[in-house]
Amino acid sequence: MTDRDELRIALIGAGRMGADHARRISGRISGARLAHVSDLSLDNAKRAAAGADCAVGDDPLAAVHDPGVDAVLLATPGPAHEELLLACLERGLPVLCEKPLTPDSDSALRVVRAEAALGRRTIQVGFMRRFDPEYVHLKALLDARELGAPLTLHCAHRNASSPPGFSDDMMITDSVVHEADTARWLLGEEITEVSVLRPRRSALAPEGLADPQLVLMRTASGTIVDVEIFVNCGFGYQVRCEAVCERGTALVGADHGVLRHTAGTWGGTVAADFRDRFERAYDDEVRRWVAAARDGGIDGPDAWDGYAAAAVTEAGVRAQATGGWAEVRLAERPPLYR
Amino acid sequence: MTDRDELRIALIGAGRMGADHARRISGRISGARLAHVSDLSLDNAKRAAAGADCAVGDDPLAAVHDPGVDAVLLATPGPAHEELLLACLERGLPVLCEKPLTPDSDSALRVVRAEAALGRRTIQVGFMRRFDPEYVHLKALLDARELGAPLTLHCAHRNASSPPGFSDDMMITDSVVHEADTARWLLGEEITEVSVLRPRRSALAPEGLADPQLVLMRTASGTIVDVEIFVNCGFGYQVRCEAVCERGTALVGADHGVLRHTAGTWGGTVAADFRDRFERAYDDEVRRWVAAARDGGIDGPDAWDGYAAAAVTEAGVRAQATGGWAEVRLAERPPLYR
Amino acid sequence: MTDRDELRIALIGAGRMGADHARRISGRISGARLAHVSDLSLDNAKRAAAGADCAVGDDPLAAVHDPGVDAVLLATPGPAHEELLLACLERGLPVLCEKPLTPDSDSALRVVRAEAALGRRTIQVGFMRRFDPEYVHLKALLDARELGAPLTLHCAHRNASSPPGFSDDMMITDSVVHEADTARWLLGEEITEVSVLRPRRSALAPEGLADPQLVLMRTASGTIVDVEIFVNCGFGYQVRCEAVCERGTALVGADHGVLRHTAGTWGGTVAADFRDRFERAYDDEVRRWVAAARDGGIDGPDAWDGYAAAAVTEAGVRAQATGGWAEVRLAERPPLYR
Amino acid sequence: MTDRDELRIALIGAGRMGADHARRISGRISGARLAHVSDLSLDNAKRAAAGADCAVGDDPLAAVHDPGVDAVLLATPGPAHEELLLACLERGLPVLCEKPLTPDSDSALRVVRAEAALGRRTIQVGFMRRFDPEYVHLKALLDARELGAPLTLHCAHRNASSPPGFSDDMMITDSVVHEADTARWLLGEEITEVSVLRPRRSALAPEGLADPQLVLMRTASGTIVDVEIFVNCGFGYQVRCEAVCERGTALVGADHGVLRHTAGTWGGTVAADFRDRFERAYDDEVRRWVAAARDGGIDGPDAWDGYAAAAVTEAGVRAQATGGWAEVRLAERPPLYR
Repeated sequence: MTDRDELRIALIGAGRMGADHARRISGRISGARLAHVSDLSLDNAKRAAAGADCAVGDDPLAAVHDPGVDAVLLATPGPAHEELLLACLERGLPVLCEKPLTPDSDSALRVVRAEAALGRRTIQVGFMRRFDPEYVHLKALLDARELGAPLTLHCAHRNASSPPGFSDDMMITDSVVHEADTARWLLGEEITEVSVLRPRRSALAPEGLADPQLVLMRTASGTIVDVEIFVNCGFGYQVRCEAVCERGTALVGADHGVLRHTAGTWGGTVAADFRDRFERAYDDEVRRWVAAARDGGIDGPDAWDGYAAAAVTEAGVRAQATGGWAEVRLAERPPLYR
Repeated sequence: MTDRDELRIALIGAGRMGADHARRISGRISGARLAHVSDLSLDNAKRAAAGADCAVGDDPLAAVHDPGVDAVLLATPGPAHEELLLACLERGLPVLCEKPLTPDSDSALRVVRAEAALGRRTIQVGFMRRFDPEYVHLKALLDARELGAPLTLHCAHRNASSPPGFSDDMMITDSVVHEADTARWLLGEEITEVSVLRPRRSALAPEGLADPQLVLMRTASGTIVDVEIFVNCGFGYQVRCEAVCERGTALVGADHGVLRHTAGTWGGTVAADFRDRFERAYDDEVRRWVAAARDGGIDGPDAWDGYAAAAVTEAGVRAQATGGWAEVRLAERPPLYR
Repeated sequence: MTDRDELRIALIGAGRMGADHARRISGRISGARLAHVSDLSLDNAKRAAAGADCAVGDDPLAAVHDPGVDAVLLATPGPAHEELLLACLERGLPVLCEKPLTPDSDSALRVVRAEAALGRRTIQVGFMRRFDPEYVHLKALLDARELGAPLTLHCAHRNASSPPGFSDDMMITDSVVHEADTARWLLGEEITEVSVLRPRRSALAPEGLADPQLVLMRTASGTIVDVEIFVNCGFGYQVRCEAVCERGTALVGADHGVLRHTAGTWGGTVAADFRDRFERAYDDEVRRWVAAARDGGIDGPDAWDGYAAAAVTEAGVRAQATGGWAEVRLAERPPLYR
Repeated sequence: MTDRDELRIALIGAGRMGADHARRISGRISGARLAHVSDLSLDNAKRAAAGADCAVGDDPLAAVHDPGVDAVLLATPGPAHEELLLACLERGLPVLCEKPLTPDSDSALRVVRAEAALGRRTIQVGFMRRFDPEYVHLKALLDARELGAPLTLHCAHRNASSPPGFSDDMMITDSVVHEADTARWLLGEEITEVSVLRPRRSALAPEGLADPQLVLMRTASGTIVDVEIFVNCGFGYQVRCEAVCERGTALVGADHGVLRHTAGTWGGTVAADFRDRFERAYDDEVRRWVAAARDGGIDGPDAWDGYAAAAVTEAGVRAQATGGWAEVRLAERPPLYR
């Protein structure tokens, strides 16, 4: 496309996350516009499309096949992903797929293999933390070995409260999946096994949910990653990662913002939710994806990353059941992703 | 203009700041594009325009009169501003004018009066701190009187080193002008007098420059603002503002970022320069201006703010000479700016 | 005295501060014991002496002349100090004198001259900040010129609320006197002039008290010290000092303690009062004084420091009245104090 | 003893820790003095006794039986403890015993039972963290359930470098023993099982030492405590404990001290070693023990705490070998310790 042409995006899925992306594309990102908004709820689709000169519908495949569409931003629930991703691959459309790639590693592997057959990477997975300035800084520190080799990562991932229907396995598949990806990315290696411990349960957690949990992951080189996942912590949204290296430590997610002194206390406010905390990361993620998609490619985590994250979380769910270590089962990595 | 039309911007002045804005418009801001880039150095103009499908020239008035231009981003040195702003007013073009509005309050007042005669505000001044998330948070805190009335502001404004040719009066007109604007904005009132103290001079300051200086400003309600301006502090770029209120304090500019422990120390890195520190503020400033300019208006500090800042800095320069308090002389505020 | 002999201390003045010292001597400090407790209120004296095997009375001179007393800790209000200090000098008794040395510089100078006539320093003034670990660290940094020469000090001195009867001049004589001493000590030079600005008054300050105030002090080398004194800040006790030097800054009094995240906020608690904040400094002050007093000497700020602080605060009170700069008038420094 | 009598202390063991205590007793603590200093190296004993009017010897049992001794501070290596503690129990002497109580839980249990037979608690164990102001604050927070019930503790325990001869099991018995005690104390319950993970080994660790290690402990109520022990972290001494509770978190050990900005960085210095970090805790520990010992008792962790810590560390050492969870085997708790 020429410099002046805008990337025409089909947004599929116009729920909370999709609507957020719609606003981003229409109001914050140059070089792209909404061309088609699709949601099973036509009302949702219309609301997200508000003001944009674009098609609106409730048939996601129609959106993929719309000839006026250059790229797809996929923000539906995970179960719809495989079919739509395969359709995008057929058309060769660049996709930014909100996590998860698909709900399980088998389906994820089918997507990976279909893309490998296509021979080029067109699917990017929405692990937005890779675009957060602090994580980017940490990644650079680790890659440069400024602090020596990383030996262990201590992570905490806390939400004020969990949404209705949030289940035990979603602690892993919906939440810790972010740490699975950031750990793989920061360390540059695969996770080989996972174990899950259940500390004393918070009396404030919804019935049936063991909250918090402590997830342990071991990588190929032996680095251990521990993750406290606590989705009813009560005080806000907090994501921390401390890398302990041979010659020092580096912490992402320390408190910041306006510092107040009032009524006997000093301090500041905690982010309310992930969009608040990672707003700039989302902007950068979509901006860089748009730029890459205009050339037909991606600029971020790929389908293999989505597949590997699924395999790690599956091991995590198995480990929840057994109380022991569960092996992460990965297929051979196709050359496309090396 | 319709939703699909992009705002066609003439960038006048393609030096460091202008080139930065060129990148911003081309790559980060939706709804706008460079239509004309003008610089006395045609090479600069070409470099800034790189890749954009736009006119390039060295005649700024030609840029203002280019019929393919909807709005102007003025980033030349201050002495050229008055003529160009008046030309924009004649055409009714929205302008984002990098500070200062003009080099002195007399010329600034002429611009204010010309705009008042036009009867609508089309000139925005580039005081980007008003778009920094922390300052925005502080402004909201103060406006809501959560901490009671503000009584004093303690500010520090530090640069690693001053550029060649940076003179004593530029400490005020180039640097403290930002605090003059943020103080007026945060407190919602005019500054009435200014005094400048000269602490012991740093032996590392360039010859002839009294660095640091301590600037004191008093507002109509009696609030006192003290500003340490130190343009050769050596360690980086730092902007702090602590509002002391009746029931508490709030500090903008506390340290943040990745926290490291290494070699006997804990801490992080300091921002290198103002673009590093205020990158997001610049993005938000230009984004919101583009949105407003598409409707022919502005969304930020106006010409009166530019004029008032000039009047405060003039008082500051007089105070540098006398060592005492210098009155800020303001003309009557036209109804347009009330 | 031999190693086994304890220093027998007369405590004169058993109010809040004196009672605190009584507990310190009886319970925390080795090598000393209360031998005589005197207070105009015999009840106060008895309470402070509780449990100690010591004389109790209401005649301070009797305490000074008690043959069973080796040293005096003077914690009465300032007006009683001169007579008692002169009596101690006559007996050659080491004294730890709570600030102020005396209520005004004339009387302070008389004490200085009497001590100079004695020919050795036996009077120590209770500027406890000199024993605070953070201030000690800052002093070492400045003396070593690690950050280059100090150019300016920014100080804040805040109390939750002022006691009944706290008057405008006490803002200087009772509160800023601490900054006067720490500035002289940290910078190693005399303060030459003082100016006081009155920001907008807090509506929560008691009637008749202009609170906060901004005190400016200039030293012999031209270093400027600014002090915000705010005795009804509402949120607690806070003492900060930021030294701005040629190659960096160093801040004493940053927030610390247990860091909490709860109910949407992060942060900690603010010290309630000066004893809370400086408990360890008081311990170290008295401990080191006891050790020195056993040899008949002092180990801390001397009578000249007390006199100079009085001269600075007198200039501050004059500056409150005039609104301009007031010169600090110092007599010639006797050789004993060089 | 009367108020005026000083507690006459026998210091047994005058190595680094013992010499430190000797200085503390002679110079910082009221109400006590060294009466006897014993060390296998008579030179060490003499050095530690320097200046004090006390017996010096190399026979520890002679020190215990010295009729001029009221209490014992035991700072020898662990293997000597059992015999000496039993001798002290026979004489009914109060003891402050540096950790460990004894090198293993069997011998510790013998001491516990001997004390239980005596019928009163006279042995205090030197877990000084219980006297650190931040830990004390955290303990009060947890006990008051201000943040709800504690669910998990995240701990880090780092030393700049390990001394020669530091072995794998000492990671647990010498270092993590502190976390074992603080966890028991903070949570008010016993630890029931322990597991040890070995992350990637630091290339800077001495040959044969797996450093760092990740120790997991589970308590009776199900609370999980994770401890990173890293004794060659390179940058200093750091002890952190974050309590995650139902309604918030609280962190002990956040960075503090003088905050500097210099050369592109902000931050402060890290404590060099445990004496630097816990100096005030040691002072308070010994001061309170002296006060209690004058009445023949203790005021701090007791022999049962020492025994339980030994049982936990034994489980830890077993867990190092097996890679799985090891049960903590505790005898029944005698009524004396309930």
